[in-house]
Amino acid sequence: MIKTDILIIGAGPTGLFTVFEAGLLKLKCHLIDALPQPGGQCSEIYPKKPIYDIPAYPEILAGDLVDKLMEQIKPFEPGFTLGERAETLEKQEDGSFIVTTNKGTEHHASVVVIAGGLGSFEPRKPLISNIGNFEDKGVSYIIKNPEVFRNKKVVIAGGGDSALDWAIFLTDVASEVALVHRRNEFRGALDSVEKARELAKLGKIQLYTEAEVSEIHGKEEVQAVVIKYNDKQRDKSYVETDFFIPLFGLSPKLGPIGDWGLEIEKNAIKVNNARDYQTNIPGVFAIGDVNTYEGKLKLILSGFHEAAVMCQFAYQIINPNKRYVMKYTTVGGVQGFDGTKKEAKKEVVQSIV
Amino acid sequence: MIKTDILIIGAGPTGLFTVFEAGLLKLKCHLIDALPQPGGQCSEIYPKKPIYDIPAYPEILAGDLVDKLMEQIKPFEPGFTLGERAETLEKQEDGSFIVTTNKGTEHHASVVVIAGGLGSFEPRKPLISNIGNFEDKGVSYIIKNPEVFRNKKVVIAGGGDSALDWAIFLTDVASEVALVHRRNEFRGALDSVEKARELAKLGKIQLYTEAEVSEIHGKEEVQAVVIKYNDKQRDKSYVETDFFIPLFGLSPKLGPIGDWGLEIEKNAIKVNNARDYQTNIPGVFAIGDVNTYEGKLKLILSGFHEAAVMCQFAYQIINPNKRYVMKYTTVGGVQGFDGTKKEAKKEVVQSIV
Repeated sequence: MIKTDILIIGAGPTGLFTVFEAGLLKLKCHLIDALPQPGGQCSEIYPKKPIYDIPAYPEILAGDLVDKLMEQIKPFEPGFTLGERAETLEKQEDGSFIVTTNKGTEHHASVVVIAGGLGSFEPRKPLISNIGNFEDKGVSYIIKNPEVFRNKKVVIAGGGDSALDWAIFLTDVASEVALVHRRNEFRGALDSVEKARELAKLGKIQLYTEAEVSEIHGKEEVQAVVIKYNDKQRDKSYVETDFFIPLFGLSPKLGPIGDWGLEIEKNAIKVNNARDYQTNIPGVFAIGDVNTYEGKLKLILSGFHEAAVMCQFAYQIINPNKRYVMKYTTVGGVQGFDGTKKEAKKEVVQSIV
Repeated sequence: MIKTDILIIGAGPTGLFTVFEAGLLKLKCHLIDALPQPGGQCSEIYPKKPIYDIPAYPEILAGDLVDKLMEQIKPFEPGFTLGERAETLEKQEDGSFIVTTNKGTEHHASVVVIAGGLGSFEPRKPLISNIGNFEDKGVSYIIKNPEVFRNKKVVIAGGGDSALDWAIFLTDVASEVALVHRRNEFRGALDSVEKARELAKLGKIQLYTEAEVSEIHGKEEVQAVVIKYNDKQRDKSYVETDFFIPLFGLSPKLGPIGDWGLEIEKNAIKVNNARDYQTNIPGVFAIGDVNTYEGKLKLILSGFHEAAVMCQFAYQIINPNKRYVMKYTTVGGVQGFDGTKKEAKKEVVQSIV
């Protein structure tokens, strides 16, 4: 059993910075994340993308942000359970918690902080009964390497930028490209829509609008799909294909946390933002993009603030009889659990008093 | 008359970052600060001191933090009224405000944001009727350059680290050092207290405890002070000196803002932290160290969050009929009022969808 003061579920920027704020209060942290590395979305989805609204960083790549946070929390020696998903939360008689992952790893903590971001990102899937049988056998929800479609037949479904852009891109790669969309209108950028329509006119994209894929056929792998139309006048189309790629976007899911008895609103966890960012379960906090309250902004910088406030209240839960007097890092320095100490030079301190 | 969307009182880190968050919403900002340069305390009091708790900066000098923020807000072309103090706030019939400085500069804005930090720092002064006559003529509340005391007689008053450390330090500089304190116990670090007592035993510091300076004598400049004792048995002491240095700490003062009809608690402005950081005067917000609410942390990072949230609500006041849909800078980029545009490369954007 892993024991810690504060168990943080989610190792994105907010979860990572919590380690720092807790460390200033001499509280140890352990983080669980379903991803194999820390950083959450920043590492997994857009490490090479610039972020412009981190205070005092006119521009920073998401991956570099994670690196900086990892450096900042290093002195506080956080523990990590990576590549595992927090599955169950059990409150103990003494008010502490045991959180167990899908792989059975148990964690014991006085306080649990959910910093789960938008949750796990899962592709939205079309409602086709046997689609699960074809996953990775011709059905893909995300395109990682377009080269696998070289000289193959593909059917793409969806009406957003993703479906449009990939349909356009794959006309140069695949032997045949079909695009299926439930409406006539596409939600994508104007020039993408025009480009796709142009390619459709040239016969490079076979366009099926006001239509959807209703069946998948194939022995082991996808061999064909059936397209049915919104109006019942048109007959169904039977389209031979090697790949079926529904691009309906990614849907963030709370996952098992959704079953922990937390008050949920709009797929996020309600917290008391007037005070401590605690949930309806005492001792369980939720910070960062995973929480909601009036005026909530899903910004990384808001997660940082919420982490700092939340740690103060966690301290009171963990040390009910001690009074903590906050000291500025500029004045008191930062003392790591690893014995390191950072502090302003003494003569500099004097000059401000 | 200077006209702007959001008038920010206080150009410290929180005030500066407000320009950025407002700029993302296409709102123009103007800042007023009593100091001659932006940055607040960070620039004025401790520009060379490291701060360790700015998220994703394991260490940054306060002055560099200000430089980075100035760079970040540059595209939004903030206006500045520096070296002037906001004196009066007048609400107009249409709900807008006119703020006038001590030098008569008038500012018109739809929304006023007080980001005044801890206010102006003023030294706590002893209650001696004629002390004002001797300021800069032998009376100093702050020691800027200890060399002015070389081979002079000094009387220091106070019982904290500042009084102790300077008394110890000046034994090597001044010809005579006296230390006056109302109690026997000193509030300073243990080793400083011990060192001071040791120097007192050696006669290098003349110690007057359970005592205070009650009179200042001199023609133009300080020539002597009178020390009276808590117990009336002891006679007053008449001590010749060139300097009298009361080191009772700095007291932050709200200043004229305190008279604007704002709800004040513990020398800070009460705000609605559950929603928008608005004060009791609609259209007037308070963010950063100047505000207070349950659980308030006077951290720079909290000011950043408060600025971001507050700007969203300011937008609703300024554009009551428009609905603003927040777009991440990573997705939408940052468009400056100066025509500049920063955005992620197109191909990088695609890969996240």
